[in-house]
Amino acid sequence: MGASSKTAAGRFFEDFRLGERLVHATPRTVTVGDVALYAALYGARFAVQSAETFARAIGYQEAPVDDLLAFHVVFGKTVADVSLNAIANLGYAACRFLAPVYPGDTLSATSEVIGLKENSNRQSGLVYVRSQGFNQHGRPALDYVRWVMVRKRDPDAAAPQARVPDLPAVVAPAELGAACPAIDAAAYDFALAGSPHRWGDYAPAERIDHVDGVTVEEAEHQLATRLYQNTAKVHFNAFSEAQGRFGKRLIYGGHVMSLARALSFNGLANAFHLAAINGGRHVAPLFAGDTVFAWSEVLETAALPGRADVGALRLRTIATKNRPCGDFPRLLDDGYAPNVVLELDYWALLPR
Amino acid sequence: MGASSKTAAGRFFEDFRLGERLVHATPRTVTVGDVALYAALYGARFAVQSAETFARAIGYQEAPVDDLLAFHVVFGKTVADVSLNAIANLGYAACRFLAPVYPGDTLSATSEVIGLKENSNRQSGLVYVRSQGFNQHGRPALDYVRWVMVRKRDPDAAAPQARVPDLPAVVAPAELGAACPAIDAAAYDFALAGSPHRWGDYAPAERIDHVDGVTVEEAEHQLATRLYQNTAKVHFNAFSEAQGRFGKRLIYGGHVMSLARALSFNGLANAFHLAAINGGRHVAPLFAGDTVFAWSEVLETAALPGRADVGALRLRTIATKNRPCGDFPRLLDDGYAPNVVLELDYWALLPR
Amino acid sequence: MGASSKTAAGRFFEDFRLGERLVHATPRTVTVGDVALYAALYGARFAVQSAETFARAIGYQEAPVDDLLAFHVVFGKTVADVSLNAIANLGYAACRFLAPVYPGDTLSATSEVIGLKENSNRQSGLVYVRSQGFNQHGRPALDYVRWVMVRKRDPDAAAPQARVPDLPAVVAPAELGAACPAIDAAAYDFALAGSPHRWGDYAPAERIDHVDGVTVEEAEHQLATRLYQNTAKVHFNAFSEAQGRFGKRLIYGGHVMSLARALSFNGLANAFHLAAINGGRHVAPLFAGDTVFAWSEVLETAALPGRADVGALRLRTIATKNRPCGDFPRLLDDGYAPNVVLELDYWALLPR
Repeated sequence: MGASSKTAAGRFFEDFRLGERLVHATPRTVTVGDVALYAALYGARFAVQSAETFARAIGYQEAPVDDLLAFHVVFGKTVADVSLNAIANLGYAACRFLAPVYPGDTLSATSEVIGLKENSNRQSGLVYVRSQGFNQHGRPALDYVRWVMVRKRDPDAAAPQARVPDLPAVVAPAELGAACPAIDAAAYDFALAGSPHRWGDYAPAERIDHVDGVTVEEAEHQLATRLYQNTAKVHFNAFSEAQGRFGKRLIYGGHVMSLARALSFNGLANAFHLAAINGGRHVAPLFAGDTVFAWSEVLETAALPGRADVGALRLRTIATKNRPCGDFPRLLDDGYAPNVVLELDYWALLPR
Repeated sequence: MGASSKTAAGRFFEDFRLGERLVHATPRTVTVGDVALYAALYGARFAVQSAETFARAIGYQEAPVDDLLAFHVVFGKTVADVSLNAIANLGYAACRFLAPVYPGDTLSATSEVIGLKENSNRQSGLVYVRSQGFNQHGRPALDYVRWVMVRKRDPDAAAPQARVPDLPAVVAPAELGAACPAIDAAAYDFALAGSPHRWGDYAPAERIDHVDGVTVEEAEHQLATRLYQNTAKVHFNAFSEAQGRFGKRLIYGGHVMSLARALSFNGLANAFHLAAINGGRHVAPLFAGDTVFAWSEVLETAALPGRADVGALRLRTIATKNRPCGDFPRLLDDGYAPNVVLELDYWALLPR
Repeated sequence: MGASSKTAAGRFFEDFRLGERLVHATPRTVTVGDVALYAALYGARFAVQSAETFARAIGYQEAPVDDLLAFHVVFGKTVADVSLNAIANLGYAACRFLAPVYPGDTLSATSEVIGLKENSNRQSGLVYVRSQGFNQHGRPALDYVRWVMVRKRDPDAAAPQARVPDLPAVVAPAELGAACPAIDAAAYDFALAGSPHRWGDYAPAERIDHVDGVTVEEAEHQLATRLYQNTAKVHFNAFSEAQGRFGKRLIYGGHVMSLARALSFNGLANAFHLAAINGGRHVAPLFAGDTVFAWSEVLETAALPGRADVGALRLRTIATKNRPCGDFPRLLDDGYAPNVVLELDYWALLPR
């Protein structure tokens, strides 16, 4: 016999069918081991995820894992089926966290193809998927849409009729909070949490410089990305990437999201739960050796219908590389300020 | 008082006695923390080790730890007593996995000296040991032979009569499977596992390029090797190794084995259990900065006596550095193709 | 709105009040995940912390976490409130370990300001704090004093009357052992522990070269320091530190302490519990790429009142960078030998 055909080469644009449902490998049990590694990789200090005692006191059954850890684990599963042949990961929308994830939970993932649009050059096309992560009880833990530009195997392959889904610019406040149990705000210890500032202390247009910077090493982002079982080649293979677009390994965009979230503790210490991601853009690539800084703007505040325990802040967190954020670098008329790498628009919950 | 004699300098060739049994320090409890680190270091995606739910569904009491993690932990214990003064780790044989290792199990190890042969230059000699790893119930978890070339402290020291053990080239199929419970193949979800290919879908001489490459960083192999409590100096000490054979730190050979095993998921996703290692050779050294690729050849297929649930593939996995394996670099008449670093001959089990 | 004032800038010298009690964020549940990472970062092999079976056999309820892991977690909490604007971390004293810390325990910390002394240049001052770590039952787990030189925000700010606390040079033997349960020395397996040497086998003035060296990578010390939720900027921010005192990131001094403690296994394998730290000095900075060596001198031996199970050794461990310790580099008349980075004076317990 000769060369095997059992190796997965990933799906190309013409392999996707509208409405198709993809069952992703591999389910993964998230444990306190992952929680410790996540702490070591990002240094987050949000009290709910850091301490059993704190989480139980306010109403969680135990300390949940960081929301973005759950996101990355689910995202990682989708890579082999959705984006192995992607040219670019273009965006996220409508990401909702639907159930707390606790150590010991097993996450699995599926995706539905909800949009397809060939590019005019016929070399590639846009693929929109709605991905869902489930826990071991079959309960949805998170749900989000992302779109990627995927190569065609054969430029002459027929393209399906274009279909671009309608995506909400913002998750509605009424859809927030499913992953957050009723909080006993009286038991929420603001001194232990590291800040006195409640939901009501923030106002739209407030800008917060998160001050600190953190330099990323190759070993760190590789450990992180493998922890999420994300197998995208560009993150791991210096030999091939030497001939690639950037000449070196590219850091997984989700790594930047987690770094920015951890940095945001300084100024947003009580924003203990990331309830939804309205949108995210990886504006520029990040490489090992770069130092990440971040700042956030409060875009909106919202009460949650029927809940007096927590309120939501809509935040836009901007991460930069090799540029402190004391002057709040932001959108320019013609694009982003130099050095901006990430714009993340999300809802976080705080005690009222 | 002066300098202490309490520091262990390791055993030299003349310190070994045929038939001697060595009790190794330190027992080690393997936990979900180790499992998470192993995931982060290698990115394995085999479903049985990744997910409680998957493991339980097919018949495991819980998700076992990766077989090579157990191997490395046991191997690590033997280093201080067997190979601290080794010039080279020459080979493995007859390695059988005898019981599943679960998080919470405590592994300890002993070795018996089964062969000794002084080299003709009288500077060193070959030491053959049969090492066994036990769990906290005293049940053997794995059993293997390795041989190393060990320095003599004193070239003039008398050498024992040469004795080289007979070692099997291949572990017999009847000896496989002790660490694999009866599998409910109907409950084995091939979609979640990431591939439709069962044992019967593979045939001898089939060659599988595992496609991906992974670059190794100093921090990664050091974290791994310490995790295994392997104290061999060459892996950690850049100051001393600057004057050493390679001028830099050498990566633990077992790290390459685990990298190759993780890469082999792409093409062998259902080879969920490594049941035996027939032999292994570290053909060339690997250093930080190198990128590892791998391919596998099916050498044999074998049914397991009395078992209709799983079958065995005898595989030869070849790992290279800085050289993709699409053309299946292999043995040459006069040795290995350039860039080959590892040849591993083993039995893996798949659902039938 | 404009820039937020919610970002913590850290306390300056004039912000501290004598007798003030600081409640530190963030409580943290220590798990087997942290234990695994600690193993991977330092490679410690002390049997009590490594194996459930060993720990239970001698009288622990389960395997405790490494004493220095507990120390670093508590220390990390104090950084944001005590030393974010520190110029130097000057010393430790009177550090006692008061309760074993087990996986699952949640540690929190408070500090009391016990001394203040403005420097004559009025730019900064010394702050002495007594910090305490508590477990989830409110029981003290450790207690120590440290002093740091902290910048003033405003040189003209009034300074409090100088008060320098009396600190013991050595923790008294009667104060040792609270974190060590009664040990069944008959069940202590010296072969599994890796050395036959008991407490009574050591004598004052004995010097032990720990032989091995370990090179530190940026990714390693960053992972460690974040694991402890220590946010001191100098450890993480290569961009800012390029303009800083050293031109590069500085390694957390506690990382060196843990490296030295792990190296000390070779010669002190049965020194299973670090019962107190009498003092510690970070003599020179350590940077990534440096290789750490260590040696120890036995300063005293002491029986513990009322305990026949364990005895204490007072040890001075000296760590160097890029310099093996076979000739025991030590204090010179005019300071430390070149390359010394750490002097740690502590009590360790061994079975009698």
